[in-house]
Amino acid sequence: MPQLAPHIFNLLHQQGVQHAFGIPGDFALTLYDALAESDIQPIVMTHEPSAGFAADAYSRIRGLGLAVVTYGVGGLNMVNPVAGAYAEKSPLVVLSGSPGVQERHERELLHHKVKSFDSQRRVYDEVTIYAVTLDNPATADLEIHRALDQAITFKRPVYLEIPRDMVYAEIELADYPPLSLKQTDPDTLVEAMAETRLMLNRAKSPVMLVGAEVHRFGLQAQVIDFAERLGIPVCSTMLGKSAFPEGHPQYIGIYNGAVGNSYVARVVEESDCLIMLGTFMTDINLGLFSAHLEPACAISVTSEHVSVKHHQYPDIRFVDFIRALGNSQDLPYRDPSSIMAMAPRVAPSLGSLSMGGLIYELNQFIDGDTLLVTDSGDVIFAADDIWMKEGTSFLSPAYYASMGFGIPGMIGAQLADPFRRTIVLVGDGAFQMTGMELLTAQRLGLNPIVIVINNGSYASLRMMAHQEADFVKIPRLDYAQLANLMGGKGFVIETGEQLRQAFTEARTSDAVCLFDVHLAADDVSPASQQIASLFAKTLKG
Amino acid sequence: MPQLAPHIFNLLHQQGVQHAFGIPGDFALTLYDALAESDIQPIVMTHEPSAGFAADAYSRIRGLGLAVVTYGVGGLNMVNPVAGAYAEKSPLVVLSGSPGVQERHERELLHHKVKSFDSQRRVYDEVTIYAVTLDNPATADLEIHRALDQAITFKRPVYLEIPRDMVYAEIELADYPPLSLKQTDPDTLVEAMAETRLMLNRAKSPVMLVGAEVHRFGLQAQVIDFAERLGIPVCSTMLGKSAFPEGHPQYIGIYNGAVGNSYVARVVEESDCLIMLGTFMTDINLGLFSAHLEPACAISVTSEHVSVKHHQYPDIRFVDFIRALGNSQDLPYRDPSSIMAMAPRVAPSLGSLSMGGLIYELNQFIDGDTLLVTDSGDVIFAADDIWMKEGTSFLSPAYYASMGFGIPGMIGAQLADPFRRTIVLVGDGAFQMTGMELLTAQRLGLNPIVIVINNGSYASLRMMAHQEADFVKIPRLDYAQLANLMGGKGFVIETGEQLRQAFTEARTSDAVCLFDVHLAADDVSPASQQIASLFAKTLKG
Repeated sequence: MPQLAPHIFNLLHQQGVQHAFGIPGDFALTLYDALAESDIQPIVMTHEPSAGFAADAYSRIRGLGLAVVTYGVGGLNMVNPVAGAYAEKSPLVVLSGSPGVQERHERELLHHKVKSFDSQRRVYDEVTIYAVTLDNPATADLEIHRALDQAITFKRPVYLEIPRDMVYAEIELADYPPLSLKQTDPDTLVEAMAETRLMLNRAKSPVMLVGAEVHRFGLQAQVIDFAERLGIPVCSTMLGKSAFPEGHPQYIGIYNGAVGNSYVARVVEESDCLIMLGTFMTDINLGLFSAHLEPACAISVTSEHVSVKHHQYPDIRFVDFIRALGNSQDLPYRDPSSIMAMAPRVAPSLGSLSMGGLIYELNQFIDGDTLLVTDSGDVIFAADDIWMKEGTSFLSPAYYASMGFGIPGMIGAQLADPFRRTIVLVGDGAFQMTGMELLTAQRLGLNPIVIVINNGSYASLRMMAHQEADFVKIPRLDYAQLANLMGGKGFVIETGEQLRQAFTEARTSDAVCLFDVHLAADDVSPASQQIASLFAKTLKG
Repeated sequence: MPQLAPHIFNLLHQQGVQHAFGIPGDFALTLYDALAESDIQPIVMTHEPSAGFAADAYSRIRGLGLAVVTYGVGGLNMVNPVAGAYAEKSPLVVLSGSPGVQERHERELLHHKVKSFDSQRRVYDEVTIYAVTLDNPATADLEIHRALDQAITFKRPVYLEIPRDMVYAEIELADYPPLSLKQTDPDTLVEAMAETRLMLNRAKSPVMLVGAEVHRFGLQAQVIDFAERLGIPVCSTMLGKSAFPEGHPQYIGIYNGAVGNSYVARVVEESDCLIMLGTFMTDINLGLFSAHLEPACAISVTSEHVSVKHHQYPDIRFVDFIRALGNSQDLPYRDPSSIMAMAPRVAPSLGSLSMGGLIYELNQFIDGDTLLVTDSGDVIFAADDIWMKEGTSFLSPAYYASMGFGIPGMIGAQLADPFRRTIVLVGDGAFQMTGMELLTAQRLGLNPIVIVINNGSYASLRMMAHQEADFVKIPRLDYAQLANLMGGKGFVIETGEQLRQAFTEARTSDAVCLFDVHLAADDVSPASQQIASLFAKTLKG
């Protein structure tokens, strides 16, 4: 009979998980012993919020990721990144050590305990799709399979709690039929496809809007193939950025309502057939609800629903719909030669560097081997004008929007996809939250380019509130010197020329390279300027 | 009619709250406007976990504290410190901004949202004594009073969520009778006091064990007075350290079962009348259950129960019992002259500095104006041998044991008690979690002495697990240089002589002084050595 924790690590390793992010603690020491003996490498981070972000980024790229923490002080310190993984559909497995089954009966006040021994599991009920304490050898295997099926099927985080006296417990293997949690009804699918084809055939100006689920479900190739057979313009949401390669000749840019590119907005909003694939209807994806989408012209397909015009087709799996699209023979082809490529609204900086100038140079540097991770704040909105040539090369917390994602997300991304060069775009406020994690990057021998927007303020908040309110100012720090102190290489950047030189030097560097980019507090990205004015209106409402 | 948020800030200010710790965000921008207009000063921290720790420390000293955060990314990033405040009984008020009542009806996917709009409030149900969303002007004032009553009566955190369109809503003042949530029954009290006096009169070797609640309920003066009228030895738990002044002639040290001082253990465990006041029976307070306390000889009084021998007296408030003790006339007095004072198990380091040598020098430096904050790990156990001359001068997470408490806890403590010089004792692992907060200390003009135990490992874990396991090692950093970079003053310390010089220099400094103390990975405090061997046995069980 297999032992509990080694069995879990084996199953996860078979699913492609090679790294686990976390911090040990006494209730997780035996669990860490089992982890160290497994084929999965423990990556000890400096703080649990970072462990969650790193594992989230890893999950997005590998299709499954793992965080291993201790009870209370560990697990409860990772609630925010796991909530983000839930909101943005990332299949992250959280393993937490906890007090032993035996000692829970014998002692009432064990350290790290809050209200009851179940408090942590109950907290995780609120931020995962499945949360369970594995305290029974007879049912543990069944619970593990259920949890992994839920994570993989719905791309949501799950929580497994392992009492420390259960780590090496022998468990019964479950006779578990690999349950398909949602089944496609063939007749419903045929009907939906027929209506979709009819709309496409009748349409004069069809356009495709690609969302994050195309990435999460690994459907990029099918979606590209389908788009090329139609020859129609393609755009993406902010959260889905780069699920469709932005260097593709049919790609026109990010759709973001009134705050995004006006050409993209016109193409989408004037279309008589808008095919939305894997698109979440969030306030950020919809340009803070400035979008004008006409349901009578729309087909929307996600893992949660399929709708055409105003009606819905239940019981169709996202994957099956995309496959059926791919197998459709009678699709109308249009000549794509008149489609306008993505056109970032930026220009090079000759003297002092501006945010626009930074975006411009970044676009020059990015090639097919670049992976870009952004944190939250203005750097997400800057991505509106950043041009990722290849697909699946951009990660950001573009819906849940938690600050602190960038640096640890870079670590998870670079371990999940070691053949790409990773760039992080992070504000100084977010850097102060999780930037200490550069120590971990350095220890792992990673060589990211970390671009810190050093403007001494929460810039996107600053534009919404009183501009001079003390509470939007943040303390200054010499980030370049900090990088040097950590064994990396820091660059102080105030001009376009310095930025170009730094990129040249960083291109061949094996070290953590940090660009400390000095910008004025009111110098934000083109999209952010539009967003701030919309936010201000929302606040008054 | 008063407006919601200004009303809350007024009530809190009347209770002595002058500072609020947090980070703004768009769902909390209006709330921060109201805060900035109030008599309470916003203290913007670099990361929400730190905001929680700072507000917790502030609450412990002031009797009430305040953290103000935004929805989701803010609130869910502060669950761990609030859980710690719950576990260790700290009356912390959490105010969170959130989506407006109106927009919750109109929009489904607002950013920062997880499962439902109530997810965050439900998470806080698990780590606070009262959690409520203030979405109704007719009941808001009642809810606020209920929450504050719960916080003040039970010394536990509470959670108030304020939808952003409710911040300035006019609310009805409640006709709220200031409810005493727990009432003392006079006859029960008389009976309990009679039995207590009888035990004290018959006892040959009575001793008093003082716990954290004596501090939380502000009963230090009464307890000192009572102890002096009895003339008996007094010791304290680790969590209650310094609730009784350690320079008092009747004070003998920390009781910590088999891992603590053996003289204290003998006095307590051989006593025929042990009076425990405000003592939590946690594994850490009981030396990992190595304590041998005989219930037939014990009187235990806390806010949750009064027990004498094996029976309980319900319906007696902690405060009323202590007052009744103070009013007792016929108490037996013993000559205290034979009581042995606290005797730390440490000696000065002549050459290379040891952990014991550090504790020795710290004891020389500490005077009546010192406030000591420790983080978690070996530094808590080191406190077994640190001698706080004055009462209420020590703060630590000695039960919940979360790493990261130290640096932000120092900020909260120094603002709550600005007339004392604050020292922080923190391991390198914990420093990497929240040490960035020194930027905030610097910005506020604080002058703590921060002692970083730089040994490249989670030392207390290291002693429990394989000593050379990779997962207990942490990356190195030049902490002294980091302090210089942040505008403070760093000291590299390898010998006893360097430490003595650094203390001399720091005594008159107005800057953040950081002592980067280099120690071997296996050089831990006397108590920690004993604890590690006990933990190892527990792990096997």
